Amino acid sequence: MSKARIGLVGLGVMGANLALNIAEKGFTVAVHNRTAARIHEFIADAGPLAERLIPAETPAALAAALGSPRAIIIMVKAGAPVDETIAALKPHLDPGDIIIDAGNANYEDSERRARELAAEGFRFIGLGVSGGAEGARHGPSLMAGGDASAYAEIEDILTAIAARFAGKPCVALLGPGGAGHFVKTVHNGIEYAEMQLIAEIYGLLAQVEKRRAWDIARLFEQWNEGPLRSYLIEITAKVLHALDPVSGAPMVDVILDRAGQKGTGRWTVIEALKLGQSPLMIEAAVAARAWSSEKDRREMGAELLPAPRHEPAPPILDADLERALIAGRVIDHAQGFALMAAASEAHGWNIDLARVAEIWRAGCIIRSEMLDDIAASIREGLPGGLLIFAPYFVEMLEEAVPGLRRVAAGMILRGQPAPALGAAIAFWDSMRQARGTAALIQAQRDYFGAHGFARIDAEGEGHHGPWAEGS
Amino acid sequence: MSKARIGLVGLGVMGANLALNIAEKGFTVAVHNRTAARIHEFIADAGPLAERLIPAETPAALAAALGSPRAIIIMVKAGAPVDETIAALKPHLDPGDIIIDAGNANYEDSERRARELAAEGFRFIGLGVSGGAEGARHGPSLMAGGDASAYAEIEDILTAIAARFAGKPCVALLGPGGAGHFVKTVHNGIEYAEMQLIAEIYGLLAQVEKRRAWDIARLFEQWNEGPLRSYLIEITAKVLHALDPVSGAPMVDVILDRAGQKGTGRWTVIEALKLGQSPLMIEAAVAARAWSSEKDRREMGAELLPAPRHEPAPPILDADLERALIAGRVIDHAQGFALMAAASEAHGWNIDLARVAEIWRAGCIIRSEMLDDIAASIREGLPGGLLIFAPYFVEMLEEAVPGLRRVAAGMILRGQPAPALGAAIAFWDSMRQARGTAALIQAQRDYFGAHGFARIDAEGEGHHGPWAEGS
Repeated sequence: MSKARIGLVGLGVMGANLALNIAEKGFTVAVHNRTAARIHEFIADAGPLAERLIPAETPAALAAALGSPRAIIIMVKAGAPVDETIAALKPHLDPGDIIIDAGNANYEDSERRARELAAEGFRFIGLGVSGGAEGARHGPSLMAGGDASAYAEIEDILTAIAARFAGKPCVALLGPGGAGHFVKTVHNGIEYAEMQLIAEIYGLLAQVEKRRAWDIARLFEQWNEGPLRSYLIEITAKVLHALDPVSGAPMVDVILDRAGQKGTGRWTVIEALKLGQSPLMIEAAVAARAWSSEKDRREMGAELLPAPRHEPAPPILDADLERALIAGRVIDHAQGFALMAAASEAHGWNIDLARVAEIWRAGCIIRSEMLDDIAASIREGLPGGLLIFAPYFVEMLEEAVPGLRRVAAGMILRGQPAPALGAAIAFWDSMRQARGTAALIQAQRDYFGAHGFARIDAEGEGHHGPWAEGS
Repeated sequence: MSKARIGLVGLGVMGANLALNIAEKGFTVAVHNRTAARIHEFIADAGPLAERLIPAETPAALAAALGSPRAIIIMVKAGAPVDETIAALKPHLDPGDIIIDAGNANYEDSERRARELAAEGFRFIGLGVSGGAEGARHGPSLMAGGDASAYAEIEDILTAIAARFAGKPCVALLGPGGAGHFVKTVHNGIEYAEMQLIAEIYGLLAQVEKRRAWDIARLFEQWNEGPLRSYLIEITAKVLHALDPVSGAPMVDVILDRAGQKGTGRWTVIEALKLGQSPLMIEAAVAARAWSSEKDRREMGAELLPAPRHEPAPPILDADLERALIAGRVIDHAQGFALMAAASEAHGWNIDLARVAEIWRAGCIIRSEMLDDIAASIREGLPGGLLIFAPYFVEMLEEAVPGLRRVAAGMILRGQPAPALGAAIAFWDSMRQARGTAALIQAQRDYFGAHGFARIDAEGEGHHGPWAEGS
């Protein structure tokens, strides 16, 4: 029996689809799962692709099924299961063999695994995979970090299975160790904020303007033909069109308003904060999901808290909503790319951020035409390292930000929550201020804590004010 | 020579002032510092209090100067220096001796130290100290966590040195291990947001309305006579009145607008996120400081980004600003107390949150009359565990929130950043919604990731929509 080209452990939805994708591209895959029954069930369901799928009931069988050096993709729940899987495989591996963690790992775990495995002579790749179940099956965006020689050995497979944008595969080795998983985490953070932006605009339409789901769906369809064209806008229209088979009502109206999170948005924020970064739009999106989960509290709040009084407020046009989404989305990406730049710098990863934008153009959840423009702007060099300073986007935002401003303010005046839109305009206006208001904060800190401050007219940080108390 | 009642290591500003405070209350203090010269300098400067200060040039001398069981306060830079100090002391200590870390420790470090020291027979207290240099000298707010028997042995000292509110000392043992330092961290988080609220209101007055510092100072003075009465409002008036001895200009106008942070605000947010909490006002305040530090970028932004267009906007009255500050401050505290409740629950600390409010009424940076009302509301029982649901605050906010709404929206329309005010109103409006917009997010997640959702009309979480792709 000939050897399989690659191994895969973990036949959940994502792992199974990835294995089918690889097999479909002509590679033989040895597949292993903790519960062996699942292996045979999976292969039995694989149709003609079954001939390129080799069952491996044990880690030993998996190792035996692979040529040298072995390359094994692990697609199990992030965290301890990954370490357990690696521990189970290691006794059957040889130096130079390649472990690829394709789960949603915390990048710090990937850094640690890369280090530990390298010390034992193995090679490691942390592979961020985006695109959901469908992407895994027919073309995900693949964000790799880790050993360059290992990447070279499996590059043909990754290239074959990845999504394509204008013929170019959406896969790249972005840096060592945890770089790929870090980029995937930021992808998810940007995704959180983009979904929250959409939910806020939907909230205005559905809850303030009382428009029906199908009417809102048509608006998103229309927006998907313009600068907002993207996967998330497209599927928003689709889910708003969908009817509940049980009640016949719009599906969205039957779903409980309590958002789940698997934690990657939260991770993005925690990692950002550790780097001194504040992607406030992502923070707002994480907050909105957390608050949505406090359903009992909100029901109590609806009883206890007074409704907003009528405030004079300028009208909000549908065109303003489109502009608000455009501006919010650009600012979201600006914060996400600034965060990746900071991480790359702090860890010495040297991530090619234009490449990141390129491999996000297809396959992943935040894929959009705009990412092609982002890639181009980054290649030209971002003034101040900030996407919103790129000439292309300054021009776009000149038109879009006034819409964002009217919508963010208008929703506040109408009592409709808009945390992510508010965070977007707060960032924009903060970045427009050559002189902000932090001088007052520095004065207070010096007053009560003698922390000292810098002056506008002198060198040094340790100046103090003429107040007695803090000195 | 008689033994000292307590020892203190670390004669920086905070440690020195704490030692003087203790000596002034009649206790003898053995003082040690890494550089011995500082010890003698400190005692030489202590005036009549010097007779209660015993110099200890080495850890051994410090241990020898203390009665049994020994109690030693460590007031050094948080992190490794604390562990180094403990390591240097331990060889000279006996079982039952008490280590008190009075620095700004991360509560997880305090949890670890409590555990490690207990295993070796020592007792540990993590002591949050707020009030800055002045508080340490004349009466700080003291938030203790750790060993109850150890606390009982030093309670008389802590009670004597603490700030007083209506005669009651602002000190309490709030729970085991890291509880005190956690509460101190949240205190600082609330402080960050409160300072940011003030800075935003100042920004509107100074940058939009172009009012001079002395004029704004008078407004804060006036507010300090009403419901906003508090230390931070009081010192804001003072620093705005202060003139630069060099130029004669208002001091605040000469200070560089780049806020420092020692990291406790950031810690608050990271710990909150780990607990699934999102105190978005604190996140906005941390973000504002981070953005303020990007001075070069902001100067570039002022050149590159278009100024806001004129938008029709309702006028903002001074009374609205006061209401916005009131509402923002209550919501800030609501988020902070909800965070402490979540941490107490997660760690089994059983923190008496009314007691926390009580010991914050004096001595600490966020001290205010409102904390007395907060304590009373918590003692009565908070509906839904949320401060903004307490009848007293619902009534206050009925008047104040419309001001917050007008100011938050009005600042956006005027192009003046207001991230914390925006976060406050976003939380308020989210908590008023029995049904929010997260159903759309759940639909999207199910569409692309088959994550499943709960329905409003059925049990269970694993329902799916009638879309093919994600299934």
